[in-house]
Amino acid sequence: MDFVEQFEDHFRRRLISQNEQVQKMCDYLVEAGGKRVRPSIFFALAEDLVESKSGDINELLVPCFDVASGIEMIHQSSLVHDDLPSLDNDDYRRGKPTFHRAFSEGYAVLFGDWLLNRAFLVVSSTSLRTEVKFEILSLLFSANERLLEGQFFDLSEDSNPMNVARQKTAALFAAVFACPGVLVGVTREVKSSLYELGETFGMLFQIEDDLRDWEKDKTKLAPNSSFASLPQEVIEKTVSELLEAFRACFKRVKQVCRSELSRTADVLRSLSFEGFSLTFD
Amino acid sequence: MDFVEQFEDHFRRRLISQNEQVQKMCDYLVEAGGKRVRPSIFFALAEDLVESKSGDINELLVPCFDVASGIEMIHQSSLVHDDLPSLDNDDYRRGKPTFHRAFSEGYAVLFGDWLLNRAFLVVSSTSLRTEVKFEILSLLFSANERLLEGQFFDLSEDSNPMNVARQKTAALFAAVFACPGVLVGVTREVKSSLYELGETFGMLFQIEDDLRDWEKDKTKLAPNSSFASLPQEVIEKTVSELLEAFRACFKRVKQVCRSELSRTADVLRSLSFEGFSLTFD
Repeated sequence: MDFVEQFEDHFRRRLISQNEQVQKMCDYLVEAGGKRVRPSIFFALAEDLVESKSGDINELLVPCFDVASGIEMIHQSSLVHDDLPSLDNDDYRRGKPTFHRAFSEGYAVLFGDWLLNRAFLVVSSTSLRTEVKFEILSLLFSANERLLEGQFFDLSEDSNPMNVARQKTAALFAAVFACPGVLVGVTREVKSSLYELGETFGMLFQIEDDLRDWEKDKTKLAPNSSFASLPQEVIEKTVSELLEAFRACFKRVKQVCRSELSRTADVLRSLSFEGFSLTFD
Repeated sequence: MDFVEQFEDHFRRRLISQNEQVQKMCDYLVEAGGKRVRPSIFFALAEDLVESKSGDINELLVPCFDVASGIEMIHQSSLVHDDLPSLDNDDYRRGKPTFHRAFSEGYAVLFGDWLLNRAFLVVSSTSLRTEVKFEILSLLFSANERLLEGQFFDLSEDSNPMNVARQKTAALFAAVFACPGVLVGVTREVKSSLYELGETFGMLFQIEDDLRDWEKDKTKLAPNSSFASLPQEVIEKTVSELLEAFRACFKRVKQVCRSELSRTADVLRSLSFEGFSLTFD
């Protein structure tokens, strides 16, 4: 079984409820699938970090899947609410009716709430020392607060793409990169480098996302909060600065971790951004 | 300054955001006020329990206010979402426009999410030992999952008042009663009695709420999930059984705590239920 299959299996087993309606919505979420970008990065990085400490990833397999599942639930919860008629008003996601279309708007509101709470419940119930779980939970609470404030900022008139992306997208990616470090028990220095790497990657991820959305329908005017609203030369300059920051940060993380982080680099490379290529040294 | 004033002051200081829109909504929440039933019970019980251990409540003041604020935020978050047009569709709460009326539906969805997350952030940031905070967070995650599943159940056709109340209302009250025990450091036995007491009280609280809602407008047919939908004799029997369970449980808690719990009894008495009177011995 490859990683994504293993993850799906675990994710499904953590999305359980005695409530019939909640269970139906959980099943729908699992069936809808997803790229699972965050869990894939999380897991590759955890493997690289464990190896650098000559540990055995198999001993951390379940906690890794639990924390990665929690992060994916936070992400999915934000999508369920984002898609609502009162926010982005999207009827389809990945070709399937969104939750408020497949069920009802009220159920979609409650399910987004349930998913967010479930994320924390899954992380808090995994087999790790209390201090480690608490540190991971604290990272997730902060990341999610920034994510939500980013969504508010996205809706405001004076939003700008850099600030929106830093909060809405980069904050959760920072947690995706930092949490494996907490789980594996790296030093504070490594954790903060990982956090920074995740934040930089998250910015690039959002730029790619904005530009791809806009490529699909160039007739629409890109909103203020989208990178596509910026002049071409500003986009190019921003991307080139972020790519350089990413490269430098990745190099620094490799040094402080004493690891080539080859699995992480492979996963990040496989995301195949259209507008630019990440470099790792 | 009396307790509620002190609480309001603390609650306000914990509802802060760098995001202008979020801050406006926080201010609106504080201005709207509320009965603060849960914080009042929490605090009275914490004082009683500290006294029974010959401790000093002043040393636990800030953590008590933080955890009580967190619980109030969970409760308020559920109200913000409950009031949405796709759920209860309420335009007013305590005489003030509900969040989706005062701001917008999209903002109300996001603010409910923000408040829930903020609840956990406030609890996780207070000055208590990590193990204690973790135990409180775990209680809150479980209570909130039950609360949300109760709301799903409330919407389903085969809902019944006992099961809805047990999940939607009693679960959070169980946490309100158990958390002061965790904070003060009582035994496992005391904690589980407190939890049970909170659950029983929560059921009575919901019955009172259902009957009062229905008294206001007797022309409307009470929904299946409301106690008002039951025949009068069934209501009476249920109330009398719950009152007896409450009395017995309160007596047991007094014994295991070696405290008269007089502040707690005073606060519970002051809630002045219309349909029935709690007895404490």
